[in-house]
Amino acid sequence: MGSLPSEVFSPLDTNLYSKESHAMVDFIADYYRHIEQYPVRSQVKPGYLSKLLPDTPPIFSEPIDTILEDIKKDIIPGLTHWQSPNFYAYFQANASTAGFLGEMLCSGFNVVGFSWISSPAATELESIVMDWMAKMMKLPSMFLFSGGQGGGGVLHGSTCEAVVCTLAAARDKALSKIGHDSITKLVVYASDQTHFTVQKASKIIGIPTSNFRALPTCSSSDYALTADTVRKAMESDMAQGLVPLYLCATVGTTAVGAVDPLFELGQLAQEYDVWLHVDSAYAGSSAICPEFRHYFDGVELADSISMNPHKWFLTNMDCCCLWIKNPNLLVDSLSTNPEILRNKASDAKVVVDYKDWQVALSRRFRAIKLWLVIRRYGVANLMEHIRSDVALAEHFERMVTLDDRFEVVVPRKFSLVCFRLKPKFEACEEANYSELNRQLLEDINNSGRAFMTHAVVSGTFMIRFAIGTTLTKKRHVDETWKLIQSKATDLLNRKYKK
Amino acid sequence: MGSLPSEVFSPLDTNLYSKESHAMVDFIADYYRHIEQYPVRSQVKPGYLSKLLPDTPPIFSEPIDTILEDIKKDIIPGLTHWQSPNFYAYFQANASTAGFLGEMLCSGFNVVGFSWISSPAATELESIVMDWMAKMMKLPSMFLFSGGQGGGGVLHGSTCEAVVCTLAAARDKALSKIGHDSITKLVVYASDQTHFTVQKASKIIGIPTSNFRALPTCSSSDYALTADTVRKAMESDMAQGLVPLYLCATVGTTAVGAVDPLFELGQLAQEYDVWLHVDSAYAGSSAICPEFRHYFDGVELADSISMNPHKWFLTNMDCCCLWIKNPNLLVDSLSTNPEILRNKASDAKVVVDYKDWQVALSRRFRAIKLWLVIRRYGVANLMEHIRSDVALAEHFERMVTLDDRFEVVVPRKFSLVCFRLKPKFEACEEANYSELNRQLLEDINNSGRAFMTHAVVSGTFMIRFAIGTTLTKKRHVDETWKLIQSKATDLLNRKYKK
Repeated sequence: MGSLPSEVFSPLDTNLYSKESHAMVDFIADYYRHIEQYPVRSQVKPGYLSKLLPDTPPIFSEPIDTILEDIKKDIIPGLTHWQSPNFYAYFQANASTAGFLGEMLCSGFNVVGFSWISSPAATELESIVMDWMAKMMKLPSMFLFSGGQGGGGVLHGSTCEAVVCTLAAARDKALSKIGHDSITKLVVYASDQTHFTVQKASKIIGIPTSNFRALPTCSSSDYALTADTVRKAMESDMAQGLVPLYLCATVGTTAVGAVDPLFELGQLAQEYDVWLHVDSAYAGSSAICPEFRHYFDGVELADSISMNPHKWFLTNMDCCCLWIKNPNLLVDSLSTNPEILRNKASDAKVVVDYKDWQVALSRRFRAIKLWLVIRRYGVANLMEHIRSDVALAEHFERMVTLDDRFEVVVPRKFSLVCFRLKPKFEACEEANYSELNRQLLEDINNSGRAFMTHAVVSGTFMIRFAIGTTLTKKRHVDETWKLIQSKATDLLNRKYKK
Repeated sequence: MGSLPSEVFSPLDTNLYSKESHAMVDFIADYYRHIEQYPVRSQVKPGYLSKLLPDTPPIFSEPIDTILEDIKKDIIPGLTHWQSPNFYAYFQANASTAGFLGEMLCSGFNVVGFSWISSPAATELESIVMDWMAKMMKLPSMFLFSGGQGGGGVLHGSTCEAVVCTLAAARDKALSKIGHDSITKLVVYASDQTHFTVQKASKIIGIPTSNFRALPTCSSSDYALTADTVRKAMESDMAQGLVPLYLCATVGTTAVGAVDPLFELGQLAQEYDVWLHVDSAYAGSSAICPEFRHYFDGVELADSISMNPHKWFLTNMDCCCLWIKNPNLLVDSLSTNPEILRNKASDAKVVVDYKDWQVALSRRFRAIKLWLVIRRYGVANLMEHIRSDVALAEHFERMVTLDDRFEVVVPRKFSLVCFRLKPKFEACEEANYSELNRQLLEDINNSGRAFMTHAVVSGTFMIRFAIGTTLTKKRHVDETWKLIQSKATDLLNRKYKK
């Protein structure tokens, strides 16, 4: 059955590896060079690709040139270009040369560092870079390995994974006291602005949907969750025999960039013996600048905090930092010690085995990517990267303010501006604004010249202008603002000046 | 606060991107060229790296050459070289040129295809490539998008994620009928050979640890789970008021490569209305060869099946294929439809939004990697890749058999050989074999010339020889066998011929 290797098929032949990888570098450089020519949001229709590609795999090898031609012809038109300087949708996903080089190393070494022994450098570099990152963000020492208080950090692929793992740790800690039957009594708290990932994670780990509280926020607190609201909700739940388990506070919410008051929420969490997780997926990167660090005051009261370098920290997908004060709780909940992975270092408990800090067994060497980004750019440039994006957002905000047909809906924080068209002439009324802005957004996105997305907060439809792709410069923001103005003029003419 | 971008710091400058990426290609080519010179299993001691690296991040940018020098000097010695041709531990993690190119594209485009609209090509290529892969494996049409029966596939990062998601879907389907309070009555079944990921996933989704059944297997069935064993366990649980929920069958277990009988287990699962998941993380790739496809007979009775191209299918980390007959159950359990992600295509329900098929919101463009591997190599070469590894394993097995100091402990399946040293002379007895083989394994691994790991099945300690790294050729297997023989001779001399 089968024959010994012919030595003819050599899918990791070094010469071919070199030749084709160099060609791919050129291909991608070419993509970046022309990226502004593509419609930012893909303009294809659902099902476009199955009409272009064969429905069965090829029997024989195809040349790389043919494949690259097909990518240019069939795939690129179907991409929404997250690296386009005119991408202002969702939150940015920063690519950078150093992030790319880090991914190359990760993929080139292709080691699987689930246990220390399975690739010691992967584990140790991760612990070191998590401490570096924590120091840059001025996180309290209890979150650092070097803090000597048992804390530490791990790289996950996403915030959802970080929330699933910390929720499971909190759940198992609670259930070990009150018994597994009480799982249906556990309650998770967040705000109506918290990323839906917390609701999803809470459902994944077995908390009944009815035990997730999306507590109301309002414009008077800039959509931050107040401690008073949380206290009332917890008291009410406890009166009904339920058990408050986990509170997620956010620094920089998805819709409007709101910042929950960590100190007040932290005190409350301690009072009620509730796990406090801080999600700063987007805005966490800003903590490296002293002028934004105050948003994180109170984080010392949290049990865990996560942020995503793959958003605003020049680190290509994927990379989510999670720090935890008491990683033993993670390990208690997630560890497995099958014979097949036993080894002296793990048995002696002198090493970190990151498999017990995450969902999966397998894991990529993401640490080398984040380490490369930090070394290649240095803290000073990384601060400049954050600051220049915020400055661009301030600049955009000023332009919006100067055109009296528009308004900034929520006070800007970080590099996200939420605005809407709100012409003051008689024919246009509050009730029509949502539809008007929905249409304006559609017109902008259909032009292919920029891509933004929306939010609806307190019933108000707004356009989110999230600045932060690596390539966005002042000229892009200026040109996009002109585009918005001109699409608004067209729309208003069409609707009200017939 | 901050200033407008200076245009000086340009972390995605195309010229610099090209220059440094080309340098990195050369660096990695050089790594592959010299990979046989490194100790396969890293020989560093715990904590080695913190002595070499600074404990704070650099303030200013460092040149790429300096960083690459440090990687050579500090990181590479701490790697366990999964791409070394002499790596026979765990299961292989195949790298290949095409897999690497696919990762470059994934990282270069750096799109985030959570919804169709957020990058249509990412979603559509994934659906197409999942159908390709299913066709290669001859999966029944109910698992294909093109099968027209509602089925389809998704790429996850790991088997654990696939199991968490299918478990959550099964759980929520069951609880919707019997009420959330019954979560503590749900029972998950697997064998004592099933990967521990199933036990972990079951704990993550809130099933009490006491409701996980690791059912016994034995040598008489080559460590396959028998339907009879499962039936008895389910009957016994039901008699106690518990509710059988989920059964995981494995094709190619981790320890010894055992194959559970899918047809019998599938019939049983249908009879008891239990979700049947087939985990073929390692051996799934073999299904593309007609001579191994029979191991998958009965998969038509499963609800879901997963396998990892990142193991034995030349696809660099990470890549796990999950097919599911009724993805609506996944979506019911995992979907979230926040206003912020609403768009016409999703609202019209004419597209797949993969965020609802997985744990996280964010996701990498893994499909382009798998697609590139399949196109660049073609089905014929991929079959050759599997067959030649199996042939090498047969060759190794023959060599073991010819040395009467050794025995093959479990009949070989696929490319995994489980063997042990079992000298027949008087001084050595059954009770000593475990210690003897533990020592032999340690001696081999300490030599740095090969890396293997062990398993203990039915109390028998065995050395696992897992063939399948991309670079392993006959000469490596031959040389490693000589190494094993010589280490065995040394050990026996040391121990018994003093």
